[in-house]
Amino acid sequence: MGRSRRGWSYARAGVDRAQVARSLRELLSAARYRAPAASGRPVPPAGHYAGLIRIGRELLAITTDTVGTKGLLAQELGRWEEVGEDVVAINVNDLAAVGARPAAFVDTISMDRPTPALLAAIGRGLRRGLLAAQCSLLGGETAVVPELVHGVDLGGTALGFFPGGRRPITGERIRPGDALIGVPSSGLHANGLTLARRIVASAGVPLGRIRAGSRRRLGLELLTPTRTYVRAVESLVDLPGITGLAHISGGGVSNLVRLQREVEFRLNDWPKVPSLFGFLSQHGNVAPREMYRTFNMGVGFVIACRPGTRGPLLRRLGKAGFADAVPIGSVDRGRGVSLPRLGLTYERYG
Amino acid sequence: MGRSRRGWSYARAGVDRAQVARSLRELLSAARYRAPAASGRPVPPAGHYAGLIRIGRELLAITTDTVGTKGLLAQELGRWEEVGEDVVAINVNDLAAVGARPAAFVDTISMDRPTPALLAAIGRGLRRGLLAAQCSLLGGETAVVPELVHGVDLGGTALGFFPGGRRPITGERIRPGDALIGVPSSGLHANGLTLARRIVASAGVPLGRIRAGSRRRLGLELLTPTRTYVRAVESLVDLPGITGLAHISGGGVSNLVRLQREVEFRLNDWPKVPSLFGFLSQHGNVAPREMYRTFNMGVGFVIACRPGTRGPLLRRLGKAGFADAVPIGSVDRGRGVSLPRLGLTYERYG
Repeated sequence: MGRSRRGWSYARAGVDRAQVARSLRELLSAARYRAPAASGRPVPPAGHYAGLIRIGRELLAITTDTVGTKGLLAQELGRWEEVGEDVVAINVNDLAAVGARPAAFVDTISMDRPTPALLAAIGRGLRRGLLAAQCSLLGGETAVVPELVHGVDLGGTALGFFPGGRRPITGERIRPGDALIGVPSSGLHANGLTLARRIVASAGVPLGRIRAGSRRRLGLELLTPTRTYVRAVESLVDLPGITGLAHISGGGVSNLVRLQREVEFRLNDWPKVPSLFGFLSQHGNVAPREMYRTFNMGVGFVIACRPGTRGPLLRRLGKAGFADAVPIGSVDRGRGVSLPRLGLTYERYG
Repeated sequence: MGRSRRGWSYARAGVDRAQVARSLRELLSAARYRAPAASGRPVPPAGHYAGLIRIGRELLAITTDTVGTKGLLAQELGRWEEVGEDVVAINVNDLAAVGARPAAFVDTISMDRPTPALLAAIGRGLRRGLLAAQCSLLGGETAVVPELVHGVDLGGTALGFFPGGRRPITGERIRPGDALIGVPSSGLHANGLTLARRIVASAGVPLGRIRAGSRRRLGLELLTPTRTYVRAVESLVDLPGITGLAHISGGGVSNLVRLQREVEFRLNDWPKVPSLFGFLSQHGNVAPREMYRTFNMGVGFVIACRPGTRGPLLRRLGKAGFADAVPIGSVDRGRGVSLPRLGLTYERYG
């Protein structure tokens, strides 16, 4: 185990969360500008999963994200279709987390050299993601910048809307007593890869190895595309009783804090954690506290709802292809996110 | 002059245009997917400056772009406000090129380390760009990915709309006899920087030098932020007679081919080229043909209009702060873009 004895964390993997937060505050404070209403009217809350703006007679949602260092894993494995699907999924899931239906996507590919086969694979992945989200590709940018990027920096932006007067769901109606439903993830998605890659490299486990408890090579397990939750949300967003939606992305379970700060999200029934996460925790000697705020730990999307509507929502999810959704806890008086069985509490997002 | 004797070109600077084009075709072909109409209806033409989609009762335009290697120049000079402004300007100018009014912007910053002062400077630049475009910042993504990016890879996406039933302007109504108006650029904008940086480095000219014909240090000249043409377009887009709009970005004057393929854009009156371009051409021994398809050569935006409306449009532009706009040529029977005095013709974009 050697170096990993000390225990890997995101900070040791090269990301200083506090410094990132400080830098972001500086950026947002300096960038503040209020456009005239003739250019559309932003709708609060700012900084949620997607930005909302009223343009003419429509309310729109926009969000942007990159696959980050998952692109380095794609490069090591020489496989690009998976991250092509990811870059759509991670963005449309953020739209789903405000209850918006995806309409349009644009991709941004910065790379060190243009390779037709590589871009064809990314294209096939984009198509899979677009199909899962029923979303149109409206453009993109491909920059060949070998001095700037090592490999491929793959990002995108998704635009969504609220059909038929549907209202956004931002979590402000969540109250104690609400139930929490979790929809399983398909693996790491596109978060925590910086840490996961360090752990695997540090432990000297080859990406081609099939670890105990899996049938697939470790590299392919890590590369599994992000599950798309758009159809889950579309299947139930027009039902009454839904009070919050969370995409469990970077920040792990602390993402729930983004929904509301005046309640406690008690995750009493977190489902059995897939063995891939146990493998990473063990080989990296990563503390549970760090695991649950870095990885999705098996749950990629959470739905908060009034307790009486949980059963009907689970049935609806089952019909939409999400029969693996399960109750994971409830909302209580208090603050933050807690995993009582593990003695973990998160007061802040990230 | 040494190495530059042979003459610099984009290919020698590391960018193989044909390979990029091939790769893009592969990407687009593989990504093709037609979403159901319930997810919005894309409006042709695809691949123009911005993608168009009808969502509910509104027609929207979306576009994405990065500042590319201009970020490396920013890093060399330790100045980030300029590229912060650029990333907004290059995107909203693409919206202006379809006649859309900018409403929302999201930024994407991939960087090797988070530095509060650097992000504050980018934030101030974003604010300047947003102010010039009267556009709201609706979100962003900041990824710390030291293994992936050297310095800062700065991109963004802009969303625009067509207020009051305004129709998009895509160039299909352009016909022989139309007049062409050019609006001057503020420098290189964010295009051709890979080539410009190579030329300057190869010629051994320090970025701190003030070249003959300029009052500013060369580095700052090259870093000058992109001019924003939003107010120019907003000032005249509701007038009759406008048939085409072109942002002279990567691809230089060949951008005009994007407006229409069945006419010839004859640039008989190209204005005096700013001396910075002459400096680059001379020190890099760059052929005119390469110069005009790489750099904007002093004109950042072009407006095609019916000949009788040119005068009123120029007056309107003058009142909107673009008194430096000038006639630059006209539309003729034929194909492509020509600069007759230089004997240059471009049949294709890029």
